Amino acid sequence: MARMVALLTDFGLHDPYVGQMKGMIQTHAPGTVIVDVCHHVEPFNIVQAGFFLAASQAYFPEETIFAAVVDPGVGGDRRIVLVEKFRQFFLAPDNGLLTLLMHKGGLTRARDVTPPWRREASATFHGRDLFAPLAAKLACCAEIDGLGEEINPHSLTLLPGAQPGLVGDTLTAMVLNVDHFGNCVLNLESQEWGNTLAKAQGLAIIAPASAPVRPAFTYELLEPGEVGLIKGSQGYLELALKQASAAQELSLSLGMSVTLRLDRQG
Amino acid sequence: MARMVALLTDFGLHDPYVGQMKGMIQTHAPGTVIVDVCHHVEPFNIVQAGFFLAASQAYFPEETIFAAVVDPGVGGDRRIVLVEKFRQFFLAPDNGLLTLLMHKGGLTRARDVTPPWRREASATFHGRDLFAPLAAKLACCAEIDGLGEEINPHSLTLLPGAQPGLVGDTLTAMVLNVDHFGNCVLNLESQEWGNTLAKAQGLAIIAPASAPVRPAFTYELLEPGEVGLIKGSQGYLELALKQASAAQELSLSLGMSVTLRLDRQG
Amino acid sequence: MARMVALLTDFGLHDPYVGQMKGMIQTHAPGTVIVDVCHHVEPFNIVQAGFFLAASQAYFPEETIFAAVVDPGVGGDRRIVLVEKFRQFFLAPDNGLLTLLMHKGGLTRARDVTPPWRREASATFHGRDLFAPLAAKLACCAEIDGLGEEINPHSLTLLPGAQPGLVGDTLTAMVLNVDHFGNCVLNLESQEWGNTLAKAQGLAIIAPASAPVRPAFTYELLEPGEVGLIKGSQGYLELALKQASAAQELSLSLGMSVTLRLDRQG
Repeated sequence: MARMVALLTDFGLHDPYVGQMKGMIQTHAPGTVIVDVCHHVEPFNIVQAGFFLAASQAYFPEETIFAAVVDPGVGGDRRIVLVEKFRQFFLAPDNGLLTLLMHKGGLTRARDVTPPWRREASATFHGRDLFAPLAAKLACCAEIDGLGEEINPHSLTLLPGAQPGLVGDTLTAMVLNVDHFGNCVLNLESQEWGNTLAKAQGLAIIAPASAPVRPAFTYELLEPGEVGLIKGSQGYLELALKQASAAQELSLSLGMSVTLRLDRQG
Repeated sequence: MARMVALLTDFGLHDPYVGQMKGMIQTHAPGTVIVDVCHHVEPFNIVQAGFFLAASQAYFPEETIFAAVVDPGVGGDRRIVLVEKFRQFFLAPDNGLLTLLMHKGGLTRARDVTPPWRREASATFHGRDLFAPLAAKLACCAEIDGLGEEINPHSLTLLPGAQPGLVGDTLTAMVLNVDHFGNCVLNLESQEWGNTLAKAQGLAIIAPASAPVRPAFTYELLEPGEVGLIKGSQGYLELALKQASAAQELSLSLGMSVTLRLDRQG
Repeated sequence: MARMVALLTDFGLHDPYVGQMKGMIQTHAPGTVIVDVCHHVEPFNIVQAGFFLAASQAYFPEETIFAAVVDPGVGGDRRIVLVEKFRQFFLAPDNGLLTLLMHKGGLTRARDVTPPWRREASATFHGRDLFAPLAAKLACCAEIDGLGEEINPHSLTLLPGAQPGLVGDTLTAMVLNVDHFGNCVLNLESQEWGNTLAKAQGLAIIAPASAPVRPAFTYELLEPGEVGLIKGSQGYLELALKQASAAQELSLSLGMSVTLRLDRQG
């Protein structure tokens, strides 16, 4: 059976770039089902792209081929990698975009699939000329083993700070996304961190701003003015204020580091 | 044969929400054809969503499954309903979104398909976790009778004022949409109201503003400054001004009530 | 085998218009693969639409049916034409949109496929009611010969100035697109003009502004402040400035004519 392709880019929809990628995929793998994850990643924002991908992959079928093209280093010598995880395939530049995915538990295999001609043509549009044909090849059920060569998954580029750090009572997290309500998604997976933080006797942001935080796992339980840590629909905990912007109140923006103090004894 | 799915939401395209819905549909019903009706309904605007749906359904194949997710009451106890009409299927929250569709003539059957777990998880994203799997189940040709239980179509929530009212010479209508030219679509189906109004000796708006109206069924026939009632391409009559915004001139906005005086004798 | 359909319009995505077109295509040709080239052409901008089409077609499969609906004259008496070129099909209003495509070398056949009822209904939405059913008919492998009647391709409407003119040392070109960096795509195909201009001893814009131009075919080679003629990813040469807007510096906008002086002897 043919595999489906899911696209994630920062190309937007005002130009024919996404259309050209899809044309290339249909040229090389006619009839392939293509789904847009999102094309409005902030330009060059690898953190947000990695979050969108990590938050979305579980809702796609096994064998889905994700092509994630957010690539500030296009034309440079970064590799193009193919990661196999959760019985799915992830094509991306090796620039840190896959960091959150790599931090999730589970067996991972990786291949370097950079084509030899990558730096030849200045006029090359990698999404269309490189990622799309690769995705199409995989969609037609190519034997993965024939593509590029296997590499050590530990050799992949990881974003510094994207793994939350708990040292003593200090928890360092990162803002993965700010939604249009000003809610700030942190790199704390709900499943992994939800219980620990719910049991804490006290919780507070100590940097960059300072504020007590209530681990209320539903938005409805918050009092006006109170900062809550909410279990959102995207699988990660979110800093939120009722009827106000947490990003603004706490001076947070996408990619920033946040330090929390966790009082486990009370 | 598999059925196709048509999506209508207020999610926009800047987040991966629509992508996640589509991923879920492909997971549960691989290969399903999915078409976007529109994802830019104004946030929470049930009137506009209902108009987009009522204006679009006739252009989709029989057996199409529409999933319409504009849902200010998400997490509350409103039902999820499945309506069968015009040999098509309509999944929506029971919040009035289907009002215009219900007001169209034709046999209607309805089912309550609310899953029992709807209020369990605070982190639930209903479009993805509830509507998408339901749509997928229907797409795979589920026997409709096995889904939820049949309810009286008259028990569905209807928006007040969405049915035009003609009492004596006073016609009360509602603004279903304002396009970017400022044209105001009214809840007057062209087929039903076109002839009546064309034959009127006089027509005027009397509230909220006051202005004579010309039932000119083509835009080209209007004089500059003249308010016309135009037969638009969406199946409903529209208030329009040549080279000006009817919404601005007549102080109208989406969802508002409009009163017209209809002089049938002259 | 069924053919795929590629859509190019200026409808945007805030209304259900594109959705209605797709619904109609699925109604008349169930299961057709539909790809969006772009729906954000500037309203009524035939030059930009023609550029998006000419720059994109090569990336789509043979037999693709392009439906390009940017149509300021909708409702007037312009023809609807079907052009066969590069083993692909192009449906468009005969308003100049296909000019760049026609200027590309290659065998071209054309048919007038205007339906007789085009001016009947004032409420007709041509994209949905005329282009979509035509595209669907072609997608189901209609014999092309049965559609409308063959016409002389030279009878198609062409945009004046869309063919670059080299007279002596004066080259007259046209701005086909301005991207969000302010880069100005000219109607100079890279393959045709790249070598000629690279060999020039000197190159300068002389109207509307005045500036020396460096035929640097990669963006990286430009000095700050220097105007370059760049080989872009869309198949045409582009005027660009490093870290600045060429459109602003050179007072250029979409559709404008640009005059360059080409010094072939040095």
